[in-house]
Amino acid sequence: MSVGAGQAPERAVTGAGLATVGAASLVGSLTAVRGLSVGHARRVTDGWRTGVTVVLAPPGGAVGGVDVAGGAPGTRETDLLDPRNVVERVDAIVLTGGSAFGLAAADGVMRRLAAAGIGFPVGAAGVVPIVPAAVIFDLGRGGALPAASATPGPELGALAYDNASTGPVAHGTVGAGTGASSCGIAGGVGGAATVLDDGTTVAALAVVNSAGSAVDPRTGRLYGDLGAVFPDPDPDLLAAWLASEWRPKPYPSGFGAERGLPSSASASSPMNTTIGVVATDAVLTKAQCARLAASGQDGMARAIRPVHTMVDGDSVFALATGERPAGNLNALLTAAADVFAHAVADAVFHATGFADLPGYGALVLGPGRPADGAG
Amino acid sequence: MSVGAGQAPERAVTGAGLATVGAASLVGSLTAVRGLSVGHARRVTDGWRTGVTVVLAPPGGAVGGVDVAGGAPGTRETDLLDPRNVVERVDAIVLTGGSAFGLAAADGVMRRLAAAGIGFPVGAAGVVPIVPAAVIFDLGRGGALPAASATPGPELGALAYDNASTGPVAHGTVGAGTGASSCGIAGGVGGAATVLDDGTTVAALAVVNSAGSAVDPRTGRLYGDLGAVFPDPDPDLLAAWLASEWRPKPYPSGFGAERGLPSSASASSPMNTTIGVVATDAVLTKAQCARLAASGQDGMARAIRPVHTMVDGDSVFALATGERPAGNLNALLTAAADVFAHAVADAVFHATGFADLPGYGALVLGPGRPADGAG
Repeated sequence: MSVGAGQAPERAVTGAGLATVGAASLVGSLTAVRGLSVGHARRVTDGWRTGVTVVLAPPGGAVGGVDVAGGAPGTRETDLLDPRNVVERVDAIVLTGGSAFGLAAADGVMRRLAAAGIGFPVGAAGVVPIVPAAVIFDLGRGGALPAASATPGPELGALAYDNASTGPVAHGTVGAGTGASSCGIAGGVGGAATVLDDGTTVAALAVVNSAGSAVDPRTGRLYGDLGAVFPDPDPDLLAAWLASEWRPKPYPSGFGAERGLPSSASASSPMNTTIGVVATDAVLTKAQCARLAASGQDGMARAIRPVHTMVDGDSVFALATGERPAGNLNALLTAAADVFAHAVADAVFHATGFADLPGYGALVLGPGRPADGAG
Repeated sequence: MSVGAGQAPERAVTGAGLATVGAASLVGSLTAVRGLSVGHARRVTDGWRTGVTVVLAPPGGAVGGVDVAGGAPGTRETDLLDPRNVVERVDAIVLTGGSAFGLAAADGVMRRLAAAGIGFPVGAAGVVPIVPAAVIFDLGRGGALPAASATPGPELGALAYDNASTGPVAHGTVGAGTGASSCGIAGGVGGAATVLDDGTTVAALAVVNSAGSAVDPRTGRLYGDLGAVFPDPDPDLLAAWLASEWRPKPYPSGFGAERGLPSSASASSPMNTTIGVVATDAVLTKAQCARLAASGQDGMARAIRPVHTMVDGDSVFALATGERPAGNLNALLTAAADVFAHAVADAVFHATGFADLPGYGALVLGPGRPADGAG
């Protein structure tokens, strides 16, 4: 696929059974899939630094799937997404800070959906909204103690719901990425989208809060920037970053350190987690959605090193709105990995962070660094 | 194993690798496993008919596992119980009515645990209580509309936590079984416990809200009453029941009907679900706990027909407190299936239900029917 005009040469993805992926930019956001809405809410006052991102399916829901690949997941309503189980369609996905406490944010989204009559119909009893959720670990990053007192609840979930729109998605230090860190620098929310030759749209939203680094310390570039759409690092800033307290550090437990791999910086943040959504407008079965989510995990693996560790609860949801006939499934899976990888890079690129948790832009890019909300 | 004195002959469980299971009654409750507490809370006023049952692990938690076998599960924090994942110990299990809305009850339990400093330690941020949960579908059974307005939330979860004790557990129309139905008669909460020859205790708690019947219509006996500890049905009452509106009926969708299988009675209750906990005081790995939970599902299969349908979210958790060295794992699994089956029978035996949802006792046993709370 090609990237933004003039930014990089067209790259052809070929191989047995794979179509050449056509000319479309990876730049974009999850709402490139028609009918999906995304809403963010955050709180950064009074010791809080956390938030919620809600993805709403179009009316009638979207076929859903999930893949849980990290060793420390915090999830809700993922069992129903097993392809053997009866519920096919998801009404919303909740991505939230607050570790397991943040699962309460889904209650607020369920209430809003139920009030709107949206959900799995259960006869005279009404509807049960289907709202799978996953959390990142951002406890304590705002400073409030006990940390559990400053975690998303139903109100912040409902606010994210109220903020949802089908327009471009704000990326950076927003929503569920508000309290995120990525190997010691600011994490955040990112996105990417592409259109395959057959017209199928594939898009991703990632909330990056990884133990591992999304930045290659040898070059200062983002591993997941597959189209090289982001600016070149400033060599002097890169050198300064690698000598600073914000550099990628050996993992606290030592794993990876002996191989020189960048890893989590903070012994006081023992848990991390990258979560997100991959979506398409193609018709997919529930089992194919599970496969689509797994391809998102492949993209995560390309974009973060190390990834899927025992301190990451890395979980990816998939949604298929079914507006278009199914095309080449292998091309779709290939693109899903690409857009998720790029969404991870986009999150770290756009995250401005805070004084005590600076962003990639300020550290490595300098004056041209992006601002929050640029998507 | 033998059952209550004089009630049935001793039964020897033998086979390759299986120890003979020793003399101990199946009668008992989950708290036979030392250190476990159980608390119930319910609300049956103002159109409500639902509740919560909380199982608390001893200080330091219990090794946990889960098995999800029904086609319509509603769950929370089950992914972390995958044996590949890092969290080994569970602080509490929440079983609740309210369908997916009821998952909010776990928030109240998490808050109570966090306030007590109980949970997975996460450095300066404190603790994250590990509280997996599963729901039954009881929406609308109390009459409130919309049904979602009358579902357990954090307050009812916290009340169940406050009510927890290590004493005998109340069985019947209590806790998460308050709004339960089982193939058109009252469901409820039941329990069973046994001690193996090597001194290992195995116990179960079941919340029975099954589409299928726990009663064999040919005899009026409970399928799961493995020790024949419950009274013989009154022949006249049995005949009257089988001619009444409360008899086991063909499944609404017709599946099973052609084979004469008893099944769900209520077209207005399209979803059901049996959930529960199997526990032991033996040392088990997390993977062995998953196996223990699966054996609980085998017990459920013996006690309910049909079981594990697409309208049941049948889920069983397992807890191992690790007070005793591991014994014969096959004997433990055998006993887990037996105690779970008996717990299902016990639930239906003790459920008194309501005027519009009578219990097994009133229908089939007559004057000697049990009362709520007899455990």
